Amino acid sequence: MYPESLKNLIESFKMLPGVGEKTAERMAFFLLNEDQERTNFFANSIVIAKEKIRKCSMCNGITDKVVCDLCSNELRNKKILCVVEDPKSIFLFERIGSYNGQYHVLDGLISPLDGINPEDIGIDKLLDRIYNESFDEIIFAFKPSIEGETTSLYIKRILDGLNIKVTRLASGVPIGADMEYVDRLTLERALND
Amino acid sequence: MYPESLKNLIESFKMLPGVGEKTAERMAFFLLNEDQERTNFFANSIVIAKEKIRKCSMCNGITDKVVCDLCSNELRNKKILCVVEDPKSIFLFERIGSYNGQYHVLDGLISPLDGINPEDIGIDKLLDRIYNESFDEIIFAFKPSIEGETTSLYIKRILDGLNIKVTRLASGVPIGADMEYVDRLTLERALND
Repeated sequence: MYPESLKNLIESFKMLPGVGEKTAERMAFFLLNEDQERTNFFANSIVIAKEKIRKCSMCNGITDKVVCDLCSNELRNKKILCVVEDPKSIFLFERIGSYNGQYHVLDGLISPLDGINPEDIGIDKLLDRIYNESFDEIIFAFKPSIEGETTSLYIKRILDGLNIKVTRLASGVPIGADMEYVDRLTLERALND
Repeated sequence: MYPESLKNLIESFKMLPGVGEKTAERMAFFLLNEDQERTNFFANSIVIAKEKIRKCSMCNGITDKVVCDLCSNELRNKKILCVVEDPKSIFLFERIGSYNGQYHVLDGLISPLDGINPEDIGIDKLLDRIYNESFDEIIFAFKPSIEGETTSLYIKRILDGLNIKVTRLASGVPIGADMEYVDRLTLERALND
């Protein structure tokens, strides 16, 4: 029913997470009403980001350089490594601004039920780095979940015997939360941490 | 903090209606993980839709031709005209499939409070069409609102004296709605219609 080119635009928006038919239609009609300059900016942003954004050769995070700005920043602490589950986490931590060490990004978390095993998430690359650089402390900053726990435990066990302090983000009650609504596991972890 | 090209991609998504910072970030990261083929399809869809989609020279609806498929369809009833407030409405009605007449799209509705006057919504073009073609009936299919009422009344008054039946979509209680939650104005209109 829609002209072919509009149909394709709607299909494109439908690729995006959380966007269904109606939202995609609204977005497509919205874009048709925008200036050519703005729609060109949109289209170019997609092409250029896809072309330029790559994985940092050191931390596996995303960057438009060979080595990302964080890894190449000589002012950051080289003795501490924060391991995260996706590139986005780095930006979340950097926005807070209180961490000044190195990062390493895994390709997800171990999840045997989903068929994701240790060899699928790039643990080798992380271990190479740990063996070659001299970290005093490694922090696992995964989301609190079975997968996060499994991945932490798995790596921790491999590192046993090396003289490295291995920690994880504290779990606890979110600030502002009503105690009544906090689940048992979170409370238990909060008491321990 | 983000690489420049990723920042631009996030900004692009933020243009879209209902998309804030976090959603835009999620969309951008999602797209970076898609195949090049799919991201190219997305970017091309934007450029091509913007290039090809234009206003139908007859009904003012959107099309990728000079005259849209509906206006050039000789099987449709030439005696009845449905006036809508935006191009999208045509597709909504066509999806229902029970209307077989002509359409005309206004550039919005009269809304003096927003500074939108009769001359801003292309009423001249509509009147030209009405004077030149020989419609028996004109249906105003605007959303039930002050602006819709104002626009219908304004055009209706101009057409007074011409031998054309002027109607509007019936207002009423949506099917499946609980009577308790229907507002007074809708009930009143439903009783009249």
